[in-house]
Parts: sequence; C-alpha cells; structure tokens
Amino acid sequence: MSEPTQPVHTTHTVGRTRVLTGAKPTSDLHVGNYFGAIRPAIEASHNPSNEVILMCVDWHGLTDRSKILEPGKYTAAVLATYLTMGFSLENNMIILQSEIPEIPEIAWYLSCVSAVGLLERAHAYKDALSSGKEPTAGLFNYPILMASDIVTFDAQVVPVGKDQSQHLEYASDMVRLFNNAVGRPVLFEPKPLIQSTPLLIGVDGERKMSKSYGNHVPLFAPKKDIEKRIKEIKTDSKGLDDPKDPETCAVFQILKSFGSAEAIEYMEQRLRTGTGYGYGHAKKDLIDEHERVFGSKRELYEHYINNPRELAQKLEPGHTRARQIAATVRQRVRDALNLGIL
Amino acid sequence: MSEPTQPVHTTHTVGRTRVLTGAKPTSDLHVGNYFGAIRPAIEASHNPSNEVILMCVDWHGLTDRSKILEPGKYTAAVLATYLTMGFSLENNMIILQSEIPEIPEIAWYLSCVSAVGLLERAHAYKDALSSGKEPTAGLFNYPILMASDIVTFDAQVVPVGKDQSQHLEYASDMVRLFNNAVGRPVLFEPKPLIQSTPLLIGVDGERKMSKSYGNHVPLFAPKKDIEKRIKEIKTDSKGLDDPKDPETCAVFQILKSFGSAEAIEYMEQRLRTGTGYGYGHAKKDLIDEHERVFGSKRELYEHYINNPRELAQKLEPGHTRARQIAATVRQRVRDALNLGIL
Repeated sequence: MSEPTQPVHTTHTVGRTRVLTGAKPTSDLHVGNYFGAIRPAIEASHNPSNEVILMCVDWHGLTDRSKILEPGKYTAAVLATYLTMGFSLENNMIILQSEIPEIPEIAWYLSCVSAVGLLERAHAYKDALSSGKEPTAGLFNYPILMASDIVTFDAQVVPVGKDQSQHLEYASDMVRLFNNAVGRPVLFEPKPLIQSTPLLIGVDGERKMSKSYGNHVPLFAPKKDIEKRIKEIKTDSKGLDDPKDPETCAVFQILKSFGSAEAIEYMEQRLRTGTGYGYGHAKKDLIDEHERVFGSKRELYEHYINNPRELAQKLEPGHTRARQIAATVRQRVRDALNLGIL
Repeated sequence: MSEPTQPVHTTHTVGRTRVLTGAKPTSDLHVGNYFGAIRPAIEASHNPSNEVILMCVDWHGLTDRSKILEPGKYTAAVLATYLTMGFSLENNMIILQSEIPEIPEIAWYLSCVSAVGLLERAHAYKDALSSGKEPTAGLFNYPILMASDIVTFDAQVVPVGKDQSQHLEYASDMVRLFNNAVGRPVLFEPKPLIQSTPLLIGVDGERKMSKSYGNHVPLFAPKKDIEKRIKEIKTDSKGLDDPKDPETCAVFQILKSFGSAEAIEYMEQRLRTGTGYGYGHAKKDLIDEHERVFGSKRELYEHYINNPRELAQKLEPGHTRARQIAATVRQRVRDALNLGIL
C-alpha cells in the first residue's frame, strides 16, 4: 500500500471543486480586466460543480514600498465590481485577503521549509532585479504568501496565466517540502489550471489595454467619460460604405470582450458589409452596449462604494465560511508541528 | 514644531517600561540558560517599574527544516521553567509567540518596506551561508519576524546580547521605513539594551555550557542525573588541604551562577583556605545548593509539564492582555494602510 500524498481530512465540499482566484487591488478596473479576469471568475461562480473563492489580494499589493497606500484605495472597487457584475455568492465566496490572519501565519511555516535559492530563482523577482529596482523582502517573499493563499483554503484548482505558472509550481514544491518535513500529508497540493488569456487591445489600437498605458475603457466611470474614451478609439481610414475587417477593428474587439452575442453578431455583419455603417456608428453601438452592460449597474456599484457597511454585510457569510476553512487548516498544520500550549 | 517620531497613542502602561525578552524552545533548559537568560528575566519581572513580556519564541525555532518538530517538544518546558522559578505574573506576561497571529501579519507589513539587501547583510544569515548550509527563507526572514515581535507589543526596551544587536538595529530601521512609507509614526521604535552576558563554563571546565556540547547541568533532571553530572566536573589536581582558586574552579563558577550569597561566600572561603575542603566537598555543596534551588521545585515543574491545561490557565491572563495589545497595534497599522472593507 502506498503512502497517501494528500491529507485524508480536508475542508472540501462534496461534489464541488474548490477554485481559488485572486484579484489585485492596484487600480480601478477596466474592460480589459473584465474580459481577462472578472468575467471568467463570475462564470465559474455559476458552475454548480465549483466552489469559487475570489480573493481580493490586498496584501500582495503592498510589496512596492512607494505604492504601499494603493491597495487600501482600490479594495472596495474590486469587491464591489465582482458583486455588481453578478458573481454568485450562493456557493462561493468573495473575500479580502487581509481579513484572514491565518494566511501570513501559514506563510511563515512555508518559509521554514523553502530554500532561499528557490525564491531567488523566481522570474518575477529576477525581473525586478534586472530592471534595477531594489526589491523589498515582500516582493521576494511573494511566492510564499501566494502559496499560503492556496494551501490555507485547501484550494484544489488555481486558474492562472502563464506568467504565474512558476508560482504554482512553487506552491506544489512547498506543500511537498512541508508534508515531508512533518512526516505526513497535512497541506493539500493544488492543481494549476494554466490559461492563455487572449489580450484585449486598448483604445490606441496598438497595445494591450492597461491603466498604465492610459488606453483603457473604464467600467463604471461617468457616461460622458466612457463616451469620450470610446470616441478616441483609433481606427483605419475606411469610409462610411467600405467593407471593414472586424478582426483588425479595435471598436469591434472591445465590444466582443463584453457584449451580448446579438450585439457582437450585429456589429460584425454591419462592418463586413460596410454599406452605411462607419466607425462612428460602430462607436455609438459600442457606447450603447457598454451602457447596457455596465452603465445599467453603475448606480448599484456606486451604492456599494458609498455604503461599505452594506458591501461588507453582503460578503460576511463568505468571510465566515472562509475563516472556518482557514482555521481548520491552521489547526491541522499546528497539530502536525505540535504548536501551542495544550 | 518638529514632527513626532513616535506614535502619540500607544498601548504603554503609565509608570512602567515594557521590556520584551524572548526565549527559544530548542532544548531542555540548563544552568547556563538560567544564568544567562532566565534569572535576569525573572529579576526584571520583580522590578515594579517594568512590565515584562517574556515570549517563548517557538516560531523562531522552526527555521531549520530538519528540526522543525523541535520547538513543539520544548515549549512546555520553557514556559514551566520561568513560571516555576518565580517569574512574577503580577504585572508581567509569559506568552507563547505562536498564540499571537498578529505577529506574522505585521511581519508581512515590515517585509514590504525592508530591502532584500538588508536581510542579505544580516550576520546570522551570512554565517549560515558561509557554513555551507542551504538557508531557508525562514532563516532569511528571521530579522523581520523578530522586529515584528517587538513592534507588535510596542516594546520600549529589548535586552539582547551583543550577537543580537544587529537585529535590534534592523527593527529600528524597519520601524522608520514603515512610518515613513505611511507618512506618520505608527510603529513604536524600541530601545536596545545591549548586555554582555558573562558566559558560564561547562562541566568539561573548558567550553561554554551548552546542550550541544553535552557539558551542561540540567535544571530539573532526576536528582541522580544531576549528581552524576556535577561529579563529572573537571577540576585541577590540587589536594584536599591545598588552597584553591575559585576563579578557575568550574565547580565554584557554576555554583556562583545560581547559588545564594551565603552558599557562594562559604565555598569561596573554603576553597581559598583549602584546609579540609577538596573538590569532592565542593561538588557535594554544589549538589546540595542545586537541590535547594532547583530540586525543591522539581515537583512543581513536573506538575506543570504533566498538566498543560493548568499551565495554560496560569498564563491565560497574560495571553489575554498580550492579545489586546497586539490587536490594538495591528489596528493602528491597518488604519494607516487603510486595509479592510469598512
């Protein structure tokens, strides 16, 4: 009989796969974030075979000393966005990392089995070094905190982009090192789900949509700001009646990232046919669709932002459940190390 | 008017100086530990101008992966020893580090303002590297956790040996970096109290008393083991009636480290005079004094070891008070970073 490699008693919910997804609160969210991260997480929350933990990872946002006050500014926006856009709380949780003190505690245990060399080889750390920055210990320890996010919740599946796949390997390494050091399986080893996120183009029609490039379309800005931003989208010089290629049209690509199937099909056909449908018409349709999808929820979003107590109350059952899971895993780890007085 | 450099609102007790002392649970305690650390902390606990927090730092003991199960084994012994030997709980606390989850959380905040280079320059880390060991991230991060021990309790004075003075400088650096990053004094900067601990000689008469050299005299071992160990003490070849030098006599040095003034004076005079007082007599007197000081408390010590619930209950008021302090400091830090939902 072979030794078990995973703990026998876990906090898992029968019939559901626990999926952990993180969202870093480092700026107001835009359509690119919605396309790449928010919508997939919301869809996952509606899959009855999942139990999704969507974690706003504010502690991860602190690792740049000069931007240490940023996460506190954007946390409510992240939480409110997922809630407003329809993340299902029925069998899932939206939680704030900094509400779970078990995470840094378990990170300490992981740090005691992880070689310094492992962290020195992390791509993100090496990139920071080679860019000439003086990295903080927080940046250096980032993979440990991320591994703790995962193991503190017995996460089974962690969807990540390719740029994060090394961190998932590290999490697996740390789980094995810890279980090995204490002589039995205590931490649950997660499965990575490496996803290739197709990038969304920005309003400059050139680069990936990103707040740092200033080429983004916000989600919940005032309507006139959205209109202005969409009207700025760079297009080619084809005339009103020319057939246009949706594949190279940033207006269409942005619509495709969040619009309804009908809106997408309509614009695609009108662009291809061309007749009487210029980029101005397409922008107008994009503005209308943005208003239908996001603008209609602007009031609800702002309500949450202005009433953080109500936001917190909505998320409280999830935090309660998450704290139970974290407390159980913490106790499992402490028992294995025989920590505590009793 | 100059800016304040220390926080205005702290958890300090009027008229008392908060002194933080750590005790690492890495082996059963011996007379050398009593002399160097335990007795000074107990004496400090009886000084009415102090509020001593004696912290059993079990988390610090985990940083060597191959010895990760050790701290859990020795924690009760450390706690019971301080209690048995008369540490006053009246205005002071004996606490267990791993009962205070605020410590690793605040360590994370400190790590986000500390440069990796700072940790790379730590003597203890460099020593580990040069000894050819592969250090864990826990060892690398040790100064951050230690700084967090200090700031989590608004410690005012931290008595340390010279070997730890760099860690105290680091703690001050981190306090300033953090306060600077958030734009106001939030963490309290501790004062180091560098102490030159005179070393106690072991039973081999050569090296510092240390469990790793196997030349130690235990505190609470069975009486016959104590007798055997004391009879092993190396002495010179002076005869029964020769005058003997107490300064070079390990028997006397060990007695001096814990004995009463009377016992010390008596042996010193008898050795100097010599007549009718050989090393055998001195060893017998040392055994008697050991039995009077420690042996008389062996039963109480073993009672605590065998009744951890009672031990925990004795320490509970201190843990409650310590948790209040830690929670207050944590909230101060979180407010400065604007963390949390509300």
